[in-house]
Order: sequence, then C-alpha cells, then structure tokens
Amino acid sequence: MRPVTPETSAEGAPDDGISRRRLLGTAGAVGATGLVLGAAGGAASYAAAEEKPTALATVGSTGIAFHGRPHQAGITEPQQAHGHLVAFDLAPGAGRKEAAALMRRWSVLAGELMAGRPAGDSDTGVALDAGPSSLTVTFGFGRSFFDRTSLVAQRPPGLDPLPSFSSDRLDARRSGGDLWVQIGANDALVAFHALRTIQKAAGEAAGVRWQMNGFNRSPGATARPMTARNLMGQVDGTGNPKPSEPDFDQRVFVPSGGDHPWLAGGSYAVVRRIRMLLDDWEKLPLHQQEKVIGRRKSDGAPLTGGTETTELALDATGPDGKLVIPDNAHARISAPEQNGGAAMLRRPFSFHDGIGPDGTPDAGLLFICWQADPLRGFVPVQRKLDRGDALSPFIRHEASGLFAVPGGPRKGEYVGQRLLEA
Amino acid sequence: MRPVTPETSAEGAPDDGISRRRLLGTAGAVGATGLVLGAAGGAASYAAAEEKPTALATVGSTGIAFHGRPHQAGITEPQQAHGHLVAFDLAPGAGRKEAAALMRRWSVLAGELMAGRPAGDSDTGVALDAGPSSLTVTFGFGRSFFDRTSLVAQRPPGLDPLPSFSSDRLDARRSGGDLWVQIGANDALVAFHALRTIQKAAGEAAGVRWQMNGFNRSPGATARPMTARNLMGQVDGTGNPKPSEPDFDQRVFVPSGGDHPWLAGGSYAVVRRIRMLLDDWEKLPLHQQEKVIGRRKSDGAPLTGGTETTELALDATGPDGKLVIPDNAHARISAPEQNGGAAMLRRPFSFHDGIGPDGTPDAGLLFICWQADPLRGFVPVQRKLDRGDALSPFIRHEASGLFAVPGGPRKGEYVGQRLLEA
Repeated sequence: MRPVTPETSAEGAPDDGISRRRLLGTAGAVGATGLVLGAAGGAASYAAAEEKPTALATVGSTGIAFHGRPHQAGITEPQQAHGHLVAFDLAPGAGRKEAAALMRRWSVLAGELMAGRPAGDSDTGVALDAGPSSLTVTFGFGRSFFDRTSLVAQRPPGLDPLPSFSSDRLDARRSGGDLWVQIGANDALVAFHALRTIQKAAGEAAGVRWQMNGFNRSPGATARPMTARNLMGQVDGTGNPKPSEPDFDQRVFVPSGGDHPWLAGGSYAVVRRIRMLLDDWEKLPLHQQEKVIGRRKSDGAPLTGGTETTELALDATGPDGKLVIPDNAHARISAPEQNGGAAMLRRPFSFHDGIGPDGTPDAGLLFICWQADPLRGFVPVQRKLDRGDALSPFIRHEASGLFAVPGGPRKGEYVGQRLLEA
Repeated sequence: MRPVTPETSAEGAPDDGISRRRLLGTAGAVGATGLVLGAAGGAASYAAAEEKPTALATVGSTGIAFHGRPHQAGITEPQQAHGHLVAFDLAPGAGRKEAAALMRRWSVLAGELMAGRPAGDSDTGVALDAGPSSLTVTFGFGRSFFDRTSLVAQRPPGLDPLPSFSSDRLDARRSGGDLWVQIGANDALVAFHALRTIQKAAGEAAGVRWQMNGFNRSPGATARPMTARNLMGQVDGTGNPKPSEPDFDQRVFVPSGGDHPWLAGGSYAVVRRIRMLLDDWEKLPLHQQEKVIGRRKSDGAPLTGGTETTELALDATGPDGKLVIPDNAHARISAPEQNGGAAMLRRPFSFHDGIGPDGTPDAGLLFICWQADPLRGFVPVQRKLDRGDALSPFIRHEASGLFAVPGGPRKGEYVGQRLLEA
C-alpha cells in the first residue's frame, strides 16, 4: 500500500479495496507544506517515512482516478516523465468474447495500479515503495479490432485509414494494432511495472504487436511548470488547445448523441513515431533553425516578437520586405488559423533508442495527438505540412497508428463495455 | 543560464564563466523552504519563474561540481533517474595527442554541463529551462586505450582482462572500448543533451562503440530516500559499503603512492549488461523468489529476520533443520564475509529496450560497480556467484567492460592529464 496525497488526487474515489479516506485516516498525514509525512500501512519499508520527509514526495503520492470520469485518464493530464506505448493483436481464434474478458481484466488492473495498489497476488513488487506517481493507463481500439470482434457495424468512420503522406517511411510491423495501451508515470519503475502487468494480463487473448518507450522532462527539473521541449531543442506544444477554452471539449472529445454512442466522451489518438535527423538539424545555425520553425528557440516566442503565448504575426515583414515568419515555417503551416481552425491536443513523449552503427541517434518524438475527429485534427494539418513544411527534411515518420479511445469507465464498468456488450 | 541552489550544490565553485555566487546574487533567491523562487538571467522563459514556485524545483537546481574533488563525480553521488553509458574507440590514426585533446575538450564540456551552462555556441538547447539536475559525467579508460596511445607501461594490472565466467553470453560489439563515459541526471533531457554533446565533441578523434540507456526510481517517488529496487522487484544495493565506514575509501578508491600515480584517487568500474529473464523469474512463487535471494522481497530484510540493514544470520536454521538462507542464496554468496571481505560499490541503472518479437522484455540491469581493485571486488564475488548462485538461471550477462577511472580533475586540469602528459 502506498501513500496518496488527497489534494493532488484527481476526482473520483477508489471504488474498491481500502478507500483513500481510510488509507489517509490510518496512516497518512499531510503537513502544512503538502509533504507526505506519514506512511500507508503494510510495507515495513515505510515505517520510518517520517524520519526524513522530503518536499519531493508529491511526485510519488499524486494519484489519478481511473473510474468515474467522463474521459479516460492520460489525455488532459500533464505529460508524465516516462511513457510506454504498446499495441496488441488479438490471438488467432480470439473474438468479441475474449476481447471483452481482456478489457475487463485490464480495466480492473488499471484501476488498481493507478491507485497505487498491487496488481493482485502475483504482483511482481517492482512498484513497491513508490506511490502511484501520476500513473495513467489509457486503452484504445484500432480499425482491425472491429473486424476481429465482428463489430464492423459499430466502427466509426473516424477510424478510416489515414491518408498516405509523401514523407511517410512507415514500418508496418511497428504500426497499427487491434488494441493500443498508453502508459505514463512520473517514476520509471511504476511505468515499467504497469507495462509488464498489462502485458502479462493479456494472457492467451492477445500478443504484443509493437512497443515503444518514451520520456519527458522530470517534474521539478524546471523552476515552474513549462511547455515541453523536444530533442531538437524546440519548445513544443505551445499551440495546444487549453481546457479553459470554450471549444476545448468539442475539439478533443467525441460528443454524445452521435452514430456511435459507445464512443461518447471518447477521443481519437493518432500515434506517429517521428524520427529526428539530429545530425542534419544540428548543422543548421540557430537563426536558420528558428526560421524553419518560425519561433525563437530560447523561449518559443514567435519570430515576430512577444512571449511564447503571443499570437504569430503571420503578415509581418522585416526590413527586407520578406515575411518574418517564412511561408514554409512549421509554426505557420500548423497554425489553426491556417487550417480552418483544425486543432488537436498534442501530448507526446520523446524517444531515444540508442545510437545506431552509423553513429546517428535513433531518437525523436513519439507524437500522440488527441482529437474528436481525425479529419478535423491531424489529417488536414499533416496534409498541409506534407506539402511544404520547412521541417520535413529533418524528420521522418517511421510508424503510425490510429485508435478510437472510449470515454472513461463508470465505477464497476470496463473500458469498451458499451461497445462489446451492446 | 539555469538556476543553482547553493545548499544542495557539491563542493567546489565553478571555475570559469559566470560564478555561482554572481549567478545567485543577480537572480537567484532561496526561500526559507529551500525553493528556488528566482531565476537566472538570460532566458526569457525564466522571467516569470516566481509566478508559480514549486517545491519540486530542487530536482533541477541541484548541481554537482566536476572540478576540484579528489574523485570524479558519478561514483558516490546518489543514483540518478536517467543514465547513459557510452563507449568510444579512438579513430584509426588517432593516438596519445588526439586522446589528450579529446579529454581536454570533454572535461571542459563536462564542467559546463554539470554547472547547468550551455555547451558553447553550438549548444542544441535541449537542456534549456532545466537546472543541472544532478548531472554527472564520468570518464574511464579501457585496456585497449593504453595500446592505442602507446602508454602500455602506464597500464595498471587492474585492467587485466576479467576472467571468463560460465554464465557469460557476452556480445563483443557491446563490450569493451578504449574510452567509457557514464552520464547520469535526474532529468531525461539534461541527460540526453549531455550524451549528445559528448558524442559530437568526439569529432574525428573517436567513434561510438556501444551505447546503453538506463534508469532508476525518480527522486520523490518514495516518501523518503530508499535503497533502489530492480526490475525483478528486489531491493538492490543493501550490502553496499557506506561512505561512513572507515574502510570505504580503501575499498572503492585507488590510494596514492602506488605504481601508477596518475590513477591515485581513481577507481575501477566494472560494467555488465545483465539481462533478466523476467518471464521465468515471475513464474516462481514469492517464497521461492525469496529463497533464491535470501531476503524478503517487500523490504529487503534477511529471511532470518530484522530490517533491511540487519546482518544475515547465515547459520540460522528453521524448524526443518535446514538453513533459513539457503546455501546457494544470492545474498549469502555475495556477502562480503563470504568473500574475504571483498566489497564493491554497486551503482547500477535498470534498462528496458522494449519487448522482443518473442514477447519477452529486453530488460535488466546495467550493473556498474566501483572498487579500488577488481581482483578484490568484482572478480572474487562473481567467481563465487558463477559457481553456485541460485539466481543464475534467471539472468544472463550479455556485455562487459572494465575501465580505469582517474581521480577528479583539479581546477584547470582535464581528466587523464596526469596520464597523458606525464
């Protein structure tokens, strides 16, 4: 059992096992500064937790609820420091029944893990000691899932295959998949433990198709929460829709009342493994890199001035009469106002799978974007980028996936139940 | 420029560029709670740092000195959350002169990076915003380095090849190397930035031979600092010598007055990529896993009772008359008292390079141990483990390296200068 800080916990109470209240009542103590000073019962290793309290403990103690939310966790929560993406294919012979049983098993486990509880009697212990560490486990269905489960009539048009883009160099073995699981946590062992638990629980029903590891900046590495930076050194995510904006939900989440009620409150995830050709990129002088992007590298502000959040002055020209933000600058082409308002919530992880025999790093971005409709989010923007983005020579799309991610499960429900038991 | 908290900084002041004092004088402000409330000059992205101070900022602001210490950093400091190990071979034609120039370049860069400063004009910006985040960069020389630099007479016997062990399944392409660099940091982007900077600075002098990525628990994931856990779920590192013990230095560091004065204050690093056969391991019930190790999984206490730090009662028997800690238990065989006092400072990272086509994770331990003499540290213990460790069926040594790590550079000195300019 691991400690949970109440003020940082998401809405929704744990729905089984020891309640969060009891957990805190018996063992937890939250001081004025928000430190976790006490310890939750059970593990002897916590007995002396109060000896050396640390302001950092909130990294571990932050828990996010799995059940009882309109949307699954892992979409609007802050990006975690560690991520695992894994796609499964249903086993030969497995169909709707096996898929339903699998989603039920997975949902129970995700609820336990996200609350910081062990995954049953056979828990490996890898996540012991740590708190839930903002763990999220998010489930999605690929296009092929509906064939395998004889639910083609329930397949939404949003899962129609993405168009091909001229810059695609896709590896089919690392693309697609019947089922997709996104795992994020602020502790590497908590994330690994969740991945391993989910994989083992697939049992005979499904096998791993592909798996990727990613990361983001650690909480507390910067003096205040900041927009992420990618491995090219660019501030990345400035243009994201904000939950405070009135059309945020409309852009990101599938409304109720549509043709596919099982997907109400859900979203579509587009997943791309985008390799960065860092050797080429880093040969560009800073001012050329900034022209490619259209923003300053230091702080992400538009080249036309201001701060990171200042709008791009797309028509502004310099003393030479040329556009300050060039015609083919990445920020210009991907700006919502240049795409009929198309917007997606980008929530990526960086990846680095080592240095290849040629000395170049196998590194880049595990691009994940969320939208209510891929045809109003990723597709139009990527189509435009594909035609004339100055960044294109420095990146390569190596894998691709598109998944329908159901809404959040109610208490006692499993993800996809409204589809699989309709 | 990034903020540095003075009370968490290691000894030694930055030796060039803007001094830490000036940095704090002009911009930093440390509140009563130790939070970094101010911001260091330069980056606009810090301008509003005081808007939303966070207790977590000490993760980023902790800096460790590169120069002016008896030993290199990265040996006795707490394990960081992210690690990169990289080995280089000198380029064909490169010798002592090129090696000296390279070590000089690398040492300057390591000093800058560890202080949280950019790596010169061509810095990629990937580590912008974050503080030094406990970055350490540690350099070592492999046996072949001395052939390449015509310094065979200076090669210590401690670099004699490790013996072969029956359980070795070593991949030569991922073993050895003329030069070895260990990078650790509590932020993934800071660590990646350092790796990339070091790699690029190798220039024409040396090329990457192999590179591995690892991780440990995040600071703050547990309510107090705890001994690490590995991917088998075991508390790992309990038996480490402690800096407070009178023979710590004698065990870990090469004394002055020996045959190789250039190595005084240095140490030897044994590096092993130890794959864990997790599918097999996790099939063992908990009580059998605990017999294999000789310790409780929950808290690392010996099976003979007590807490993690209680000594093993190696002679204790149970009601059945058998030893409680079995003859072949890992903790028994590796105990210093069973190895003539042989001890090493283990400071590993876990690794996880994804899931292979057979569904098994390519995961385990980047084992790194430090000792004054491999023949009094790693070798006798590993020899004994090789003969009868109950853990052997569940692990596989896949790569190996042995490196002589010089003492800490004085101000203005570079690592290895006492060897290369003797």
